[in-house]
Amino acid sequence: MDMQGVAAVTYRGASIENRHLAHIAVVDAGGRMLCAFGDPGRVTLARSAAKPAQAAAIVDTGALERYGFDEADLALMCASHSSETRHIERTRRMLAKLHADESALRCGGHPSLSDAVQREWIRHDFVPTPACSNCSGKHVGMLAGAMLLGDAADYHEAGHPMQQRVRRTVAALCELPHEQVQWGIDGCNLPTPAFALDRLARLYAKLADAADAAVAATDSTLARIYHAMTRHPELVAGEGRYCTELMRAYEGALVGKLGADGCYGIGVRASARTRELGADGALGIAVKIEDGRVDMLYMIVSEVLARLGIGSEAQRERLAAFHHPPLRNTRGVEVGHRSFPFELRPR
Amino acid sequence: MDMQGVAAVTYRGASIENRHLAHIAVVDAGGRMLCAFGDPGRVTLARSAAKPAQAAAIVDTGALERYGFDEADLALMCASHSSETRHIERTRRMLAKLHADESALRCGGHPSLSDAVQREWIRHDFVPTPACSNCSGKHVGMLAGAMLLGDAADYHEAGHPMQQRVRRTVAALCELPHEQVQWGIDGCNLPTPAFALDRLARLYAKLADAADAAVAATDSTLARIYHAMTRHPELVAGEGRYCTELMRAYEGALVGKLGADGCYGIGVRASARTRELGADGALGIAVKIEDGRVDMLYMIVSEVLARLGIGSEAQRERLAAFHHPPLRNTRGVEVGHRSFPFELRPR
Repeated sequence: MDMQGVAAVTYRGASIENRHLAHIAVVDAGGRMLCAFGDPGRVTLARSAAKPAQAAAIVDTGALERYGFDEADLALMCASHSSETRHIERTRRMLAKLHADESALRCGGHPSLSDAVQREWIRHDFVPTPACSNCSGKHVGMLAGAMLLGDAADYHEAGHPMQQRVRRTVAALCELPHEQVQWGIDGCNLPTPAFALDRLARLYAKLADAADAAVAATDSTLARIYHAMTRHPELVAGEGRYCTELMRAYEGALVGKLGADGCYGIGVRASARTRELGADGALGIAVKIEDGRVDMLYMIVSEVLARLGIGSEAQRERLAAFHHPPLRNTRGVEVGHRSFPFELRPR
Repeated sequence: MDMQGVAAVTYRGASIENRHLAHIAVVDAGGRMLCAFGDPGRVTLARSAAKPAQAAAIVDTGALERYGFDEADLALMCASHSSETRHIERTRRMLAKLHADESALRCGGHPSLSDAVQREWIRHDFVPTPACSNCSGKHVGMLAGAMLLGDAADYHEAGHPMQQRVRRTVAALCELPHEQVQWGIDGCNLPTPAFALDRLARLYAKLADAADAAVAATDSTLARIYHAMTRHPELVAGEGRYCTELMRAYEGALVGKLGADGCYGIGVRASARTRELGADGALGIAVKIEDGRVDMLYMIVSEVLARLGIGSEAQRERLAAFHHPPLRNTRGVEVGHRSFPFELRPR
């Protein structure tokens, strides 16, 4: 069976059950490709992995200062949260800072990304509203930016001045000409960019690099975003979710964010290990799984961190439930295993 | 981007979001390959798509006559049901025919395959028991066969006489020597076979062929299974599920069954159309999606039926919600579409 491009395989007994194609790019802050698997140039819809770049456009409007958003609010702007009470309540407090209510938001409700929250919602026949969207923080941020730009209505439209700023910010952070960024419409109804996967890795390397840098004015937006996400990991996703557990485990040494339909960005601050890997400055990792399966994506991302030797074994062990989830059946019998037949090679 | 082996693509705007590899085999009842895509020899864990063959081994023990199981009971033996009340109650009535209770079953409870049922379970804090397993009918059948063979305990073990019979039946129906069938352990804890995908297509062609044949003694087991499944489609899956809607739409002209992790078998009774397609006797179709995504599998299977021109447009239209589910975001905006870049070619 052809294994080209296959990053993960699930076996049941000795038989192959499923195979998953993925692309992996590892770059440094200058954008130099250190190693890769599959097609690191794969044009990839970044989805929520683009949130740090979208947040940068919000920060650059001055909205944080103008409306008194704190670091935790900024973390929520970068979040795909689980709609836990703390996420929804923070969203409402952020709206209050704008003297707005959730009718001003242009996202919609949806089932919670947390199984535990979703069960509670079902138990109580709760119908989620826009403030419950996993992207609610980003939407409040966009609304704030739009208000500062003088046009609060329909801030989600591609032609709105706020989205024009987002376009410029994304292209600049990816170091791409405008025409090399494609735009679609996200699940939350905002424009979402697509660009080569290695540029997503570069974006995350820049986030970590900004945190490493002495506080230079040009990098301060990205440093603020890095610190907001890594100091408030529980706001970026939620209890028991990968992004939260990853950033908790690494205690500020890396930032990580999921994008829907299976992409992931990680920025690793410079260390002896990143230098050994050949990075000049911080290191960026981006992964896209072709089939959109987020459970398999988490396994592959965790395997990439292990292969690159990022962090300690104890830190990586804290991700074991995502990296090596047991394949048990309804009687608790272990029926299979996974393998990761990819190799990270210099390009 | 390399499209080899890609059967389905999801676009968001103009950008490719996900790609899905699949294998497709179309054969006739004699096993002749009419056309294929990908690797029709892909060794595939048939999972619940093997249930008709497992049921044949049960029927051949004489258990239906001995314990008074009717045609609907046989349909439930072939089912991956939704754990609706009618499924669970029938399971209990079948157990009563054996003077057994569900403690004799060797499957385990699990979340319902039906979203509606699962919500009800959550609302009522219901903990599913073995009789609620989607495979409960098969397990009662296996228990019945095991009782007739004089050993009711641990009928699920690979070495049990009932499972030895299943092994012989599966190999015989696939026309494979024993050693070319691999065995793993299924989600419900029974042994589950893996064999080349075109043999799964052949198994389903034989089911349909048996229904076409004059009632010959050698084919009667398969004909009984075909009729049980197609006359009781609501027992084979459940309300709103693909297998049920497919068999309802085709009104006895085909039998179809899902296997977990993304494989599907269809047997089509002989018609002017199957003869045009070159089939001698009935026609069999088998599909395996590499990534295990059942939602994408249903789209591909529906597309295969359309490409082959099986049934009327009106019949295929009844599957539109599975074939072309709209890609809408949380505000109801249509954000993308799918394409099916595969071609079915003679081999």
